[in-house]
Amino acid sequence: MRDFLPADKARRERVLAIIRDRYRAHGFDEIETPVVEDYDRLHAGIGGDNEKISFSVLRRGLDADGIRAAAEDPAALADLGLRYDLTVPLARFYASHRGELPGVFRAIQIAPVWRAERPQKGRYRQFVQCDIDIIGDASARAEAELIAATLDTLAALGLEGATVRINDRRALDAMLGAFGFTPEERPGVLITIDKLDKVGPEGVAAELRERGVSASAVDAFAAFLRRPRAAAGPFGEEHIRRELPEGIADDVVAHLVALGIAVAEARSLGDEGAVPLVFDPFLVRGMGYYTGTIFELAHPSVAYSLGGGGRYDGMIGRFLGTDVPAVGFSIGFERIVDLVEAGEDAAVPAVVLVHDRDVPLPQLLGLKAALVAEGARVRLEQRTKNLRALLERAAADGYASFATVSTATTRETLELKPLG
Amino acid sequence: MRDFLPADKARRERVLAIIRDRYRAHGFDEIETPVVEDYDRLHAGIGGDNEKISFSVLRRGLDADGIRAAAEDPAALADLGLRYDLTVPLARFYASHRGELPGVFRAIQIAPVWRAERPQKGRYRQFVQCDIDIIGDASARAEAELIAATLDTLAALGLEGATVRINDRRALDAMLGAFGFTPEERPGVLITIDKLDKVGPEGVAAELRERGVSASAVDAFAAFLRRPRAAAGPFGEEHIRRELPEGIADDVVAHLVALGIAVAEARSLGDEGAVPLVFDPFLVRGMGYYTGTIFELAHPSVAYSLGGGGRYDGMIGRFLGTDVPAVGFSIGFERIVDLVEAGEDAAVPAVVLVHDRDVPLPQLLGLKAALVAEGARVRLEQRTKNLRALLERAAADGYASFATVSTATTRETLELKPLG
Repeated sequence: MRDFLPADKARRERVLAIIRDRYRAHGFDEIETPVVEDYDRLHAGIGGDNEKISFSVLRRGLDADGIRAAAEDPAALADLGLRYDLTVPLARFYASHRGELPGVFRAIQIAPVWRAERPQKGRYRQFVQCDIDIIGDASARAEAELIAATLDTLAALGLEGATVRINDRRALDAMLGAFGFTPEERPGVLITIDKLDKVGPEGVAAELRERGVSASAVDAFAAFLRRPRAAAGPFGEEHIRRELPEGIADDVVAHLVALGIAVAEARSLGDEGAVPLVFDPFLVRGMGYYTGTIFELAHPSVAYSLGGGGRYDGMIGRFLGTDVPAVGFSIGFERIVDLVEAGEDAAVPAVVLVHDRDVPLPQLLGLKAALVAEGARVRLEQRTKNLRALLERAAADGYASFATVSTATTRETLELKPLG
Repeated sequence: MRDFLPADKARRERVLAIIRDRYRAHGFDEIETPVVEDYDRLHAGIGGDNEKISFSVLRRGLDADGIRAAAEDPAALADLGLRYDLTVPLARFYASHRGELPGVFRAIQIAPVWRAERPQKGRYRQFVQCDIDIIGDASARAEAELIAATLDTLAALGLEGATVRINDRRALDAMLGAFGFTPEERPGVLITIDKLDKVGPEGVAAELRERGVSASAVDAFAAFLRRPRAAAGPFGEEHIRRELPEGIADDVVAHLVALGIAVAEARSLGDEGAVPLVFDPFLVRGMGYYTGTIFELAHPSVAYSLGGGGRYDGMIGRFLGTDVPAVGFSIGFERIVDLVEAGEDAAVPAVVLVHDRDVPLPQLLGLKAALVAEGARVRLEQRTKNLRALLERAAADGYASFATVSTATTRETLELKPLG
């Protein structure tokens, strides 16, 4: 976990302000949930892996007997947990407040989450997620609004040219069926396909053979992976059909085609524009809860994904008792913040007042108050021997001008000079 | 701990933006530290009470033997803790990053803290604190800048007329000495005096007698509390002297008087203005780490304090090894947010597009994209039987206008009507 010094923190806040502004413009409303959730609800049926990566909060008031008893039942040691994502808390929130929310609820969540993973480059144990979700809309309108809002936000951050890799869990299922994998085999096969980017086609085929799934299906799939391929061409029915094996039902393809047309319009690309979607028949996304469309955000400047999401129509039902359709798109703030330029707000003049030691405090604070009242940002610095170092430090902190203050200085005689 | 729905969350973010903007104008720079700190550092010598009120994070990888062993040493169950204030993390941050910070470091921290207290009205287990601190300045310039920045921020939030109750731990010590309490008795006496607002002069005298401290000192103090008092008058030497017993050293009083003059100037009040300071010789503030000036923020609209702070010149030394002067002022965000008006940003037109079910998705998203590109905030709503309820809900969420969309609607024929 990291500390953020002033320059980094200011940059993070500027990027967050742009993201928040764009999401709001697209009709999303921000909510906030507590950092800790009830332990049992946090882990309600989402799968065992999340318990392994999440931090738990020690139950209070445990005595020595209670601690000894917990040796047989470690879950008794904790009653709260730090959230590991924003989707489970959103589902819990929606179940708690459904009556107070619009029929179609478009949520923004911008907040830290915690994962007890071994720290590595670009991965942190506390990191910020920026999620938008639409709850209560089963139509492709929801996916199209999420994708349009996300691409607009990336563009506002100077990351023009982002694309969304898209797939559908139903298309994946139809594809595995077309190769001859049985329904029972398919979840395991998906886990292996998810490694395609890492291990390549031969690695996937080898792992599938080790799994002991239908050998003829593995052969058919391996041959498909190895086939010669033309360039994908613009997004549309031809593009999608070419990426899939024979025998996929028309409605699976039609759903994706319609989404492409809607996104093109939402991005004001007209008929001529290149839709920023790429169909990826092997996109899986790890989480078990996805039920339909899945997507990942890519940008030409980096090899890794900048975010992703998908439809999870079953999850809210675990908290509410009735299923409610839901789909979300999360951008990886920690990855994006390092890619974007976000300069100081030049509209606010930032001034360092370098004062002699003997300037009386009322005079000094009066000068500062006058500049602040005029709209400036003002830092006081007592003059040191190394004035240059002092001014360089202030310039690095975003200050644009300075003035020296002696006992004779008044607001009228104060002279601002540019810094650096 | 609470969920925040869209209207509340938007209001909180607007208030935070104003606070952040004013603090920055006064030359403070925002930093951020992780939500959890190393358990031992979190509780390093600050006193046992904080351990009782803080949440601990369960150590990972404990097996049954480790859990049984912890029955004798419960501290072994936790290796991290949720921060209970922002001052201890700031001291730890400063000790880690001193070389990267300006000589006089003015810090903003706006972040949640956690306390495992029984929830009650106006008290929450997760709440936001807004702290400014100045590290590395032992002079009254620091106190004056903090007070000026805080009062300016309150005024920007519409809370004009706030006052700062001020005292000094050295004045308290001199006062207790003047009554005849021994240095050993004084810490306990302060704990009792801190209850003056709650139990009154007679309650304080009774509790002091129970403590078994010097009876003659208690009598002298009780008589002083009971003495007839004139109105305080404007802040200054006369005001301060009148509130203290005889025999207080001149330098203790002079320090407070100088601070008052500096604050008056910093608030641009000139000679005629009423300095927004009130000397309170019985102000104690509970935390044991204060070493000099202490203050509390009051506003005529409420009976409780809206914030407070003080000088804690000894705390950073616990982390750094060398003492560095420090003083901080914290405003109670949860108390302030309910007092202020913070309307929607009227500069952003907010539009609800109420569409028929049969409007094609590309047309709908194209209209939304056009309005967003023009600078609007846009929510899509499919028309329902109860149009009035739909529009009332949108108005409550801050939308100011609406338009109906049929299959024939284009950007040119789209007609915006005011809402509510």
